[in-house]
Amino acid sequence: MALDEATCLFCREPGGKVLWRNPTCRVVWPEEPEQPGLCRVVYARHVAEMTDLDEAERFALAKVVFATERALRDTLRPDKMNLASLGNLVPHLHWHVIPRWRDDRHFPRPIWAEPMRPATLRQLGADVPQRIASALERILT
Amino acid sequence: MALDEATCLFCREPGGKVLWRNPTCRVVWPEEPEQPGLCRVVYARHVAEMTDLDEAERFALAKVVFATERALRDTLRPDKMNLASLGNLVPHLHWHVIPRWRDDRHFPRPIWAEPMRPATLRQLGADVPQRIASALERILT
Repeated sequence: MALDEATCLFCREPGGKVLWRNPTCRVVWPEEPEQPGLCRVVYARHVAEMTDLDEAERFALAKVVFATERALRDTLRPDKMNLASLGNLVPHLHWHVIPRWRDDRHFPRPIWAEPMRPATLRQLGADVPQRIASALERILT
Repeated sequence: MALDEATCLFCREPGGKVLWRNPTCRVVWPEEPEQPGLCRVVYARHVAEMTDLDEAERFALAKVVFATERALRDTLRPDKMNLASLGNLVPHLHWHVIPRWRDDRHFPRPIWAEPMRPATLRQLGADVPQRIASALERILT
């Protein structure tokens, strides 16, 4: 938690391909093969908690998180969505927006738990990041 | 995911001691000894996802989730807060609002991961649920 802006991963790097951004946050596609379709919404400023923001900032970020959930549902038709803001390792406010399928590696457990089955890597089309980006643009404008 | 209202845990039971409620959601204290201080915010209606709600409903629920984070921070002074909406096993919209400490069983991992250390049960005072309830009342009114 002693991490400051100089050493913070999300202050130094985008954290993946940027699908959408505004002055206060960005939606990134980290391309993690084990979690196909996972997106992160990263706050621009180095703060740790939702309740470190004022109400307007907090709801502006939440609006992008929910728009990302909508964009992933529209694009990938998962069986379930998972949302989480943890930040124990990187205490720079960011949300995991995670599409889940009944046959994914961890279902019904959270993706951080012991796997339920061998990795069966779902193949997402190469156009998926662009389709999510387009969905975000449509939802957020 | 075939769970309907007749078989759904959160349609049948509150899910813990109710600390606060309004017509659309409740904040409960499930008393899970391994996760001291964990609260859940449970939506009243049986829906699965934040994006199954309309925008006003979604932000009304989010407001209670963030108020619960604030109440836990004010009452327990944890090192970090974790927020998650998963619902893979019980697809009835609910949020985990989890105070974390550097010496807790899983830190810095999510609470669903393999433990980092033997359970060292943090003892919370018997008055903690009432103090959280009072904090919620103050924040939300």
